[in-house]
Amino acid sequence: MPQVDEFGLISRLFAPLAARHPGALGLTDDAALLDCPPGHRLVLTADALVAGVHFFPDDPADLIARKAVRVNVSDLAAMGARPAAVMLAACFPKGTPFSWMECFASGLKADLEEFAIPLIGGDTVATPGPATFSITALGYVENGQELRRSTARSGDSLWVSGTIGDAALGLLVAQGQGGDLSETDLAALLDRYRLPRPRLALGPALTGLASACMDVSDGLVGDLGHICKASGVGAILNADAVPLSKAAQAMIAARPDLLETALTGGDDYELLFTAPPSAAAELEVLSRTLGLRLSRIGTIIEGQGVLVRRSNGEPLPLHSGSYRHF
Amino acid sequence: MPQVDEFGLISRLFAPLAARHPGALGLTDDAALLDCPPGHRLVLTADALVAGVHFFPDDPADLIARKAVRVNVSDLAAMGARPAAVMLAACFPKGTPFSWMECFASGLKADLEEFAIPLIGGDTVATPGPATFSITALGYVENGQELRRSTARSGDSLWVSGTIGDAALGLLVAQGQGGDLSETDLAALLDRYRLPRPRLALGPALTGLASACMDVSDGLVGDLGHICKASGVGAILNADAVPLSKAAQAMIAARPDLLETALTGGDDYELLFTAPPSAAAELEVLSRTLGLRLSRIGTIIEGQGVLVRRSNGEPLPLHSGSYRHF
Repeated sequence: MPQVDEFGLISRLFAPLAARHPGALGLTDDAALLDCPPGHRLVLTADALVAGVHFFPDDPADLIARKAVRVNVSDLAAMGARPAAVMLAACFPKGTPFSWMECFASGLKADLEEFAIPLIGGDTVATPGPATFSITALGYVENGQELRRSTARSGDSLWVSGTIGDAALGLLVAQGQGGDLSETDLAALLDRYRLPRPRLALGPALTGLASACMDVSDGLVGDLGHICKASGVGAILNADAVPLSKAAQAMIAARPDLLETALTGGDDYELLFTAPPSAAAELEVLSRTLGLRLSRIGTIIEGQGVLVRRSNGEPLPLHSGSYRHF
Repeated sequence: MPQVDEFGLISRLFAPLAARHPGALGLTDDAALLDCPPGHRLVLTADALVAGVHFFPDDPADLIARKAVRVNVSDLAAMGARPAAVMLAACFPKGTPFSWMECFASGLKADLEEFAIPLIGGDTVATPGPATFSITALGYVENGQELRRSTARSGDSLWVSGTIGDAALGLLVAQGQGGDLSETDLAALLDRYRLPRPRLALGPALTGLASACMDVSDGLVGDLGHICKASGVGAILNADAVPLSKAAQAMIAARPDLLETALTGGDDYELLFTAPPSAAAELEVLSRTLGLRLSRIGTIIEGQGVLVRRSNGEPLPLHSGSYRHF
């Protein structure tokens, strides 16, 4: 195969992902153009994913791309925003086979089509280091409707979407520590680790309903701590009410210490939100409408910090916090 | 010094750079908020800079940060846009001293203050590889006023701002190939390599005046080729009309082969633009107003490709194109 330079890469791999958005200018100009609908604010987030840190270098390239998109649009959902576009700064290790980059682009394409958003710009460079992908995601939210972390109130109920812990347990599976789980359970956990399900329909539906919201990326307990700190409140988390998938239940039944992994591990990309108790009925309707489990897992209280309890009221001691860099 | 985690880094180093923009939410929420002024479009660009590729790992950390900001806002200027905000995805090598990161942040602060724009979001991670910084810059341009690469017309004059080649020659200086140049000239070239001067006042002033525009990042001749290709035209470039600084003139006088380096090397971050001949008088006024040299260096013609000539009409053969990754 002939050598493909950066312009060839951009035109062959990435420009097709920009074709539907005229303001992307075919990825051939200095910058991209984007209009903001009247009455809306722009919502922006950026995440970097590094091989060996955020994914395994031998993970399938298409899944790496999809994960990079998903962790970013998840942040938009956490603000109640609808995604509008993404930008990608891709650092491919020198000598990366074209087929790998093609596979990466195919994953990007799949997700951008699923979420109906274009790639509007970015950069493609060669790096002597690990593959590093930085995605900036842009979305819109109606003026004043954005969901924040800092607005939880004492007396609010604490809710979470979907199931918690699958990705952290899936990481153990990826590391060969799945134990005697069934193939189905192993595959289910691994899939949740590799392919987050950002709650794009839920986020905008929570505007006007939730009092505070964030996505769970660094672990349920640690991220709840972020909401508490930002809002100047405390929280009681009922560990037995935290929704677990069948696969996670099976893995924790075999190794009860993994409950802590589920509660403090990261990569869930579920929405953790607070709402006044009066919102419960409406949230149950929303859950049925979206076909997405919403679980009440605790209460916001005056004070500070997160108290994790079992249903019988006993405290559940935790040894680790959430994942932190450095 | 105690270990500083990612949240500590963000709050100590980067949150102060976001303080003036309430929509940055103190860099503590999932995403940032930004309003778009009515009648304007958003302009977005992203560039990744990798240690060992785009800068030397032992370059001063503050200059690395400033270069990262400047190459991005230069792209906004090339579209005729005014910068509004930046986002930063910073991948620091594991074990990077806090003092290095502090120095990096101080450079970021200096430039964001100089350009009067906030940091509104991003990500901070540890990498096992080289330091990698990806900046997304956002700006605004009045609807329909954006400057494009694809709109140069046959008969237009070709212009460039400032001086060309200093950065490419400065790179040679950084590599110890400065020869017998005076200390002053060595320092001037090195400075231009390390600290681009994005033409933020010129870009917006060219709206309605220039027919096409881009910033020179990959080398004058190669980038002119991009304008020609995008616009479906050709160009004659008068090599002897290309503006050279005194330091560049001195270095080229000693080694005439370096004229080619100046014309094809990168990192100039000057604006290369086309305009009808009738705009010449207005451009000269603009040059005086801004205190910025604007030089007519060629002509856009029908056809394709870039013909580089000396003033006497002889073609100047070039052996290399512009810098390309992969």
